[in-house]
Amino acid sequence: MKASERDAIVSWQMNSIAERKLPQAGAGVEQADWLSDALGLMLGEYSAQSLTSRLYHGLRDWVQTGRLVCGQRLPSSRQLAKELGLGRNTVLAAFDQLLAEGFLVTRHGSGTFVADLPFPQTTTELAASPIQVEGAGALHLSARGTALLAFCHAQQEQRPTFVPGVPALDRFPHDHWQRLVRRHQQRMPQDWLAYQVQGGVPALREALADYLQLSRSVRCRPEQILIVQGAQQGFELIVRLLSDPGDEVWIEEPGYPGAQACFSAAGLGMTPVPVDDEGMNVEAVARPQSPKLIYVTPSHQYPSGVTMTLARRLALLEAAERHGAWVIEDDYDSEFRYEQRPIAALQGLVDDARVIYVGTFSKVMYPGLRLGYVVLPELLVEPFRRANARLHREGQYGVQSALAEFIARGHFSRHIRRMRDCYRHRQALLRRALAPAVARGLMLSEGHAGMHLVAWLHDAELERQLVQRGAEQGISLSLLSSYYLTAPSRPGLVLGYAGTPEAELESAGQWLTQAWCQLGPN
Amino acid sequence: MKASERDAIVSWQMNSIAERKLPQAGAGVEQADWLSDALGLMLGEYSAQSLTSRLYHGLRDWVQTGRLVCGQRLPSSRQLAKELGLGRNTVLAAFDQLLAEGFLVTRHGSGTFVADLPFPQTTTELAASPIQVEGAGALHLSARGTALLAFCHAQQEQRPTFVPGVPALDRFPHDHWQRLVRRHQQRMPQDWLAYQVQGGVPALREALADYLQLSRSVRCRPEQILIVQGAQQGFELIVRLLSDPGDEVWIEEPGYPGAQACFSAAGLGMTPVPVDDEGMNVEAVARPQSPKLIYVTPSHQYPSGVTMTLARRLALLEAAERHGAWVIEDDYDSEFRYEQRPIAALQGLVDDARVIYVGTFSKVMYPGLRLGYVVLPELLVEPFRRANARLHREGQYGVQSALAEFIARGHFSRHIRRMRDCYRHRQALLRRALAPAVARGLMLSEGHAGMHLVAWLHDAELERQLVQRGAEQGISLSLLSSYYLTAPSRPGLVLGYAGTPEAELESAGQWLTQAWCQLGPN
Repeated sequence: MKASERDAIVSWQMNSIAERKLPQAGAGVEQADWLSDALGLMLGEYSAQSLTSRLYHGLRDWVQTGRLVCGQRLPSSRQLAKELGLGRNTVLAAFDQLLAEGFLVTRHGSGTFVADLPFPQTTTELAASPIQVEGAGALHLSARGTALLAFCHAQQEQRPTFVPGVPALDRFPHDHWQRLVRRHQQRMPQDWLAYQVQGGVPALREALADYLQLSRSVRCRPEQILIVQGAQQGFELIVRLLSDPGDEVWIEEPGYPGAQACFSAAGLGMTPVPVDDEGMNVEAVARPQSPKLIYVTPSHQYPSGVTMTLARRLALLEAAERHGAWVIEDDYDSEFRYEQRPIAALQGLVDDARVIYVGTFSKVMYPGLRLGYVVLPELLVEPFRRANARLHREGQYGVQSALAEFIARGHFSRHIRRMRDCYRHRQALLRRALAPAVARGLMLSEGHAGMHLVAWLHDAELERQLVQRGAEQGISLSLLSSYYLTAPSRPGLVLGYAGTPEAELESAGQWLTQAWCQLGPN
Repeated sequence: MKASERDAIVSWQMNSIAERKLPQAGAGVEQADWLSDALGLMLGEYSAQSLTSRLYHGLRDWVQTGRLVCGQRLPSSRQLAKELGLGRNTVLAAFDQLLAEGFLVTRHGSGTFVADLPFPQTTTELAASPIQVEGAGALHLSARGTALLAFCHAQQEQRPTFVPGVPALDRFPHDHWQRLVRRHQQRMPQDWLAYQVQGGVPALREALADYLQLSRSVRCRPEQILIVQGAQQGFELIVRLLSDPGDEVWIEEPGYPGAQACFSAAGLGMTPVPVDDEGMNVEAVARPQSPKLIYVTPSHQYPSGVTMTLARRLALLEAAERHGAWVIEDDYDSEFRYEQRPIAALQGLVDDARVIYVGTFSKVMYPGLRLGYVVLPELLVEPFRRANARLHREGQYGVQSALAEFIARGHFSRHIRRMRDCYRHRQALLRRALAPAVARGLMLSEGHAGMHLVAWLHDAELERQLVQRGAEQGISLSLLSSYYLTAPSRPGLVLGYAGTPEAELESAGQWLTQAWCQLGPN
């Protein structure tokens, strides 16, 4: 059979299938005529593959879907090859694979048969049919999975206008960074491609220890630093190694949903602790149960922007000591302060504090890098390193090595300084654009730090209306209420300004001013 | 005071401290002489930092350690500047930072005072003292953390001889791959540096869907693929979304400790299911409790190397259906089969099978890449994508994009073919080196696939002796017993051969032969 003839048969059989005229299976070798015809069709269907592969898939699909029934004898490879116009080796290779996988069996002297196996008989067509999507999906999930999903809102592919937590990607020294990465990838030891259990590239931990001591007043030796694939992975290790399901974690209210998701997935009870102008107030917790963990963003509370006072910091450390709890200090964007030096970390405040410091390169470099770190008390170093190597694996050693040089040579500090200027400028720009609204009563959070502002609103209806209008404009406004576990005391919007280029920021600010003046309380 | 004078004072004060002659704190402004002297010492200690930073750290440390007590008045900035031979602005900047952080307070007209705050009074020296290491570390851990650590053995920095699961890093086309990565990093959209919620680079998911369909008979649309940072992250998502603490998971016995660690951390009960020559035997499970998850490596059981028969596969799928359980198919190294085409995946065997297919690039590319994927039934796609973006974050989009091209242009398949030849050759080499031992009774597993062999031993004492001898030679032998949850039916060694260069493999094989012949049963 020539290719053109085969094509003709295939197209005829396509029609047959469409009209459901294809002969039914079951009658055995006598019907080899329909089998080879239909296989010809198959060969057309799987046209992207080799002939052997097409024949293999065709026969296999038919066994699976019951078109070829258990115990049915197949034509000999010689006969099939002739019928299909294929080389005999092509057919034999397909048969061999099906025999090896157990779909076919041979009985000595009497030929090749479909294996006698309990394939679930389905009525689906030959090609995999698309399964129904959406609907009662949550029914399949576990209780913890369902609870977890409450913290995993559908995130759209957003334009970055006002999205909090995204740095100025347009200002990242991408070419320089990539040259550095390339050089380190090229000359890195071959071992670095394999599984690693060191806790991260030593040079990076050394550079980080220096940097953290100098700029964050974190006290640690390089060995106390564990490199992880982002702050979230640090949280994961902490909850697994230091808490059990049913334990309490104190969290800031409002607070960071990423940490909340992690705590929820770990089966922890979350006690919201109110945040006021001085930061998280542990004195305000009424519950009798001691926490195992306390999660806090003291340098620049997320999302309210408050800096925790020294008195509150000491009260927090005292409470942690009293309860035997570990404090998770999430120092996500403290590098960006516009008035004075960044506020020193909680971690170095007192000796032997029960603090685990978690840092990320997502803000000071970029989120897609997936690198962060955990600074651990000496006793916890070894368990954390082991658990991380086992549960999450280490990797990206070439990139880590490049980052070590980036820090050690001062590029990192320079980039931070530049971004500090950039964000200060962008914040000022946004404030200017919002000034008319502020003059008419819009309240903005203090802006001495960070990458976002909070615009406090008078009522939830206004919040809702602004978000809706924003969506129509392609501007994604983050609701302050989505950061609360309980009913929010005051509605508001979280306005990220760091990642939005100036022109866009200005027009988005003007839009918001206009919308607020139209909808606001006047 | 000139630099030379200051140095002289510092060195004198170093001695004072060593002899503990430094005056005690507390007497107030009259003792400004000791304060400025001691601060001069401080300036020497923090010599890597700016003068402001050194002064800030010095004063701060002293407040924290009680050397400066609450309410104590400090000399004026003018006076201190004069005493220390510093510019007044330097002193003012340090004071400002300490005022901002709340360590100092000013009272109008009467000067600068140490804040009245309850610093824990410790007796530590000025510099952070190293904390005690090791010891009762486990006491700090949670119950689940302690259980988890049982699966996280101390891993040495090993030479790769015989370490299972490591591919031939010496044969990876590193230069070609890095060029590709560089090109994709350079021209990728800026958005890819930010947080992503797409489930992975679309081109990679498309290339993978084609590859999986053709070479693994996995049936899926690209949308069903979720790119993760390694197979372990895939397991993490599955246990979180589809099981609750206390649920059962059936696992192969012996089986993969990485998966066991994940199940343990998730609070699951593990039911070991025996593996025989046909693979995992679900009929052999006596327990009445239904599993929520079933973990299996059907293509090439880890570590025994058995291929699961079609009958067993169908029985497994039937059991999963009956129990309403999800099968986790871990297809970690199925690309490496030396006799025929790789065995088709469980995932595509029947329609709507309750199977989640987990793949990794750690074996076919290299472990440090940290990329893997999960193939999900349509209903689970959206929950998994959301939970992954929230819990683990997505990233490395440039690398993903390069990998898409590597696959789509056939480099990936070519590399796999080359590695297949390489591993076949390395296995043959190891077998040849072990032949004298085999002639005298050493049993080796079948070697038609994979990256390791199992050498079965007669008794546990021999196992222990061989491991000890190996350690003396710097050869790391993996105990088969470490893959068992229950008492192992038979001792043995897991010998990885893929990642060990030929010469080293040969001599290590000869060493093992010799050791076995000396210690073995004859």
